[in-house]
Amino acid sequence: MKYSQIFTKTEKQAKEYDSLNATLLIKAGFIYQIMAGAYTFLPLGLRVLNKIEQIVREEMDKIASEISMTALAPKSLWETTGRINTVDVLMKTVAANESALAKNAQEYILNSTQEELVTPIAQKFAISYKDLPFATYQIQTKFRNEARVKSGLMRGREFRMKDLYSFHRSEEELKKYYEVVKKAYVEIFKRLGLGDQTVIALASGGDFTKDYSHEFQTRCETGEDIIYKDLKTNIYYNKEVAPPDADDTSKFEKFTAAEVGNIFPLNTKFSQAFNYYFTDQDGSRKIVYMGCYGIGTSRIMGVIAEKFNDEKGLIWPESIAPFQVYLISINDKQEAAQMIYDQLTQAKIEVLWDDREVSAGLKFADADLIGCPNRLVISEKTGDQIEWKQRTSQETQLLSLDQVIKKLST
Amino acid sequence: MKYSQIFTKTEKQAKEYDSLNATLLIKAGFIYQIMAGAYTFLPLGLRVLNKIEQIVREEMDKIASEISMTALAPKSLWETTGRINTVDVLMKTVAANESALAKNAQEYILNSTQEELVTPIAQKFAISYKDLPFATYQIQTKFRNEARVKSGLMRGREFRMKDLYSFHRSEEELKKYYEVVKKAYVEIFKRLGLGDQTVIALASGGDFTKDYSHEFQTRCETGEDIIYKDLKTNIYYNKEVAPPDADDTSKFEKFTAAEVGNIFPLNTKFSQAFNYYFTDQDGSRKIVYMGCYGIGTSRIMGVIAEKFNDEKGLIWPESIAPFQVYLISINDKQEAAQMIYDQLTQAKIEVLWDDREVSAGLKFADADLIGCPNRLVISEKTGDQIEWKQRTSQETQLLSLDQVIKKLST
Repeated sequence: MKYSQIFTKTEKQAKEYDSLNATLLIKAGFIYQIMAGAYTFLPLGLRVLNKIEQIVREEMDKIASEISMTALAPKSLWETTGRINTVDVLMKTVAANESALAKNAQEYILNSTQEELVTPIAQKFAISYKDLPFATYQIQTKFRNEARVKSGLMRGREFRMKDLYSFHRSEEELKKYYEVVKKAYVEIFKRLGLGDQTVIALASGGDFTKDYSHEFQTRCETGEDIIYKDLKTNIYYNKEVAPPDADDTSKFEKFTAAEVGNIFPLNTKFSQAFNYYFTDQDGSRKIVYMGCYGIGTSRIMGVIAEKFNDEKGLIWPESIAPFQVYLISINDKQEAAQMIYDQLTQAKIEVLWDDREVSAGLKFADADLIGCPNRLVISEKTGDQIEWKQRTSQETQLLSLDQVIKKLST
Repeated sequence: MKYSQIFTKTEKQAKEYDSLNATLLIKAGFIYQIMAGAYTFLPLGLRVLNKIEQIVREEMDKIASEISMTALAPKSLWETTGRINTVDVLMKTVAANESALAKNAQEYILNSTQEELVTPIAQKFAISYKDLPFATYQIQTKFRNEARVKSGLMRGREFRMKDLYSFHRSEEELKKYYEVVKKAYVEIFKRLGLGDQTVIALASGGDFTKDYSHEFQTRCETGEDIIYKDLKTNIYYNKEVAPPDADDTSKFEKFTAAEVGNIFPLNTKFSQAFNYYFTDQDGSRKIVYMGCYGIGTSRIMGVIAEKFNDEKGLIWPESIAPFQVYLISINDKQEAAQMIYDQLTQAKIEVLWDDREVSAGLKFADADLIGCPNRLVISEKTGDQIEWKQRTSQETQLLSLDQVIKKLST
């Protein structure tokens, strides 16, 4: 893509937003803050978000089928589970032609999670042992009525999330699928460039299970969670379930982290609320076991921006960078740049070509701020060759176009 | 994909929903009604919606850059334009820890259209004549607080829509881009299989312009609009702007239609409200001209279901069918079917293989109800060959696998 084709610009002013990730992403033209906790994804930001979600989708498609549920739900579904009174971040809205003051006004819920919607859907289609187990997921915009938001994309009033739900004939079958999801998540975080920074931590099972749930926690200084690593067993604990001696630094490592995913055995909480039973092979009626599994896709973008940067700007992992290459042409090199751009594009390499009529200094600064993994420069100085530099390195190399294509295609 | 991998089933009961499209799409397992006007897209339905949106995206990418705005907006933006008092379908919600009854409670709007959001974004990035013209679009979930909804996907409280906004230095420049969008829309509706059923009708310019706006109207008996065609000039008019003699059947053809897209010269309504000016080449300060252009992607799915069907079920246009092929294997043909499925998939042909252990009768009925363009059958009767039938035809043909691949690849 040519820079002149997108309408955004980087921001030079040093205004600081509520978090490092918001500041960097806004300065670099990836997002626009409409209000605290709600951000528009601009062309560069949408590319990153789409890449994160596509990686999640590809791994989910191996173990579940995709659907898209509604953001709105009738209040009655949340009354069925009682969560209308316990989930304190629910946003509510009132039906047309009704005043919020009216008694019995028809209210809708803006879902922050979707067990209340998916359980009746499962109940419609999966009623026999032959229909089970099955799993379904979606990648969708969700809402949380947070009192305070001060972490950019890491905590939003409106945010993107992948939520997967599974349905089983027994607790044993649920536990087996639970491990399948765990493996899929490990693969996802590896592909997102967070593999060695992300751990699986034990966390509370809430009122769903006496067992633990599991959180995928990415090391991040500005994260909201405290994690303890048992140095002997290599088991990680969220602070809420940490052993009593967790503050003994000879036994535990303590670090802050951001929750990027969670997997949760719901067991029979929702099937009981919706009276969701199936007919087993022997004709008996048995309750359905459920699991739920989330990944915060927009939060991950925030966490990555928060972690991978330097004083010059963002540093995207290869797999989710908006473009692989930032191409800079200086002075009278437009024609040569067009040819290089065309050939790289033909070789399926994603290029952002800074074709603007602005100073070379601004182009170099924007290359660093936007943070694509590779920078290519052609100028009078480079002659027939191309200067290649990685975002994470100071070294430059002069290469032929063929060498560049070979390097970037591997 | 194998049918056994998706969890939905077709419905045999003859329950009628609020519209033919809802009834057909629910019976065939494409959508699930969560409440009137709000539908979950199940695996088959999500495939169709994604295909519609991908066609729209490909044509839009040629003339604009994609972003994704928030569903929520602070109330203040809608107060700036005054539309908080004039748009009667706005959904509102209240910020955390505040009662709807409190004076000055912080309210959010759930956007039904996004001029209030996009104008300030444009204003941030495009302030010089060098930055203009530009256009940006999104494909997103929107909300309308409809008092009554009774048309399935054709009118929703929650729905999917593509909205494009353009920004110009003059009315003349806006008018030029307006024609570019018109052409892109013509191409989109052609690709969606609605080309010969969709007309461009003159409609009111509202309080934005004394000129007309333009609606893309698809002939549909259950549509909400009345269109008049001037038989002499071949100009189409929405009833609201039809000439006084429009009911003279010697001069006009009258038909009902569903609005699937609209293009609208906003002129300076929003730039005035937001005080959005640019600096022209000569240093003077001039107001920005705007246009907006919508396409209802989920509505289009409803309109197509409403129009293209017979007593046996849905009949999808090739370009947006959930799969090109519905493959039926009968009796002991699982192994042969697997081979055919693999080879078709390898040839990039999208196949839904009905691998379920159910009666042949149910498989044939589901093939018709789901409505993929081609049905393939292998059974003892077909021997080494494959029976091919189009959804729209009664004739069957026995073909070799190579012949099938050749036929479906063209």
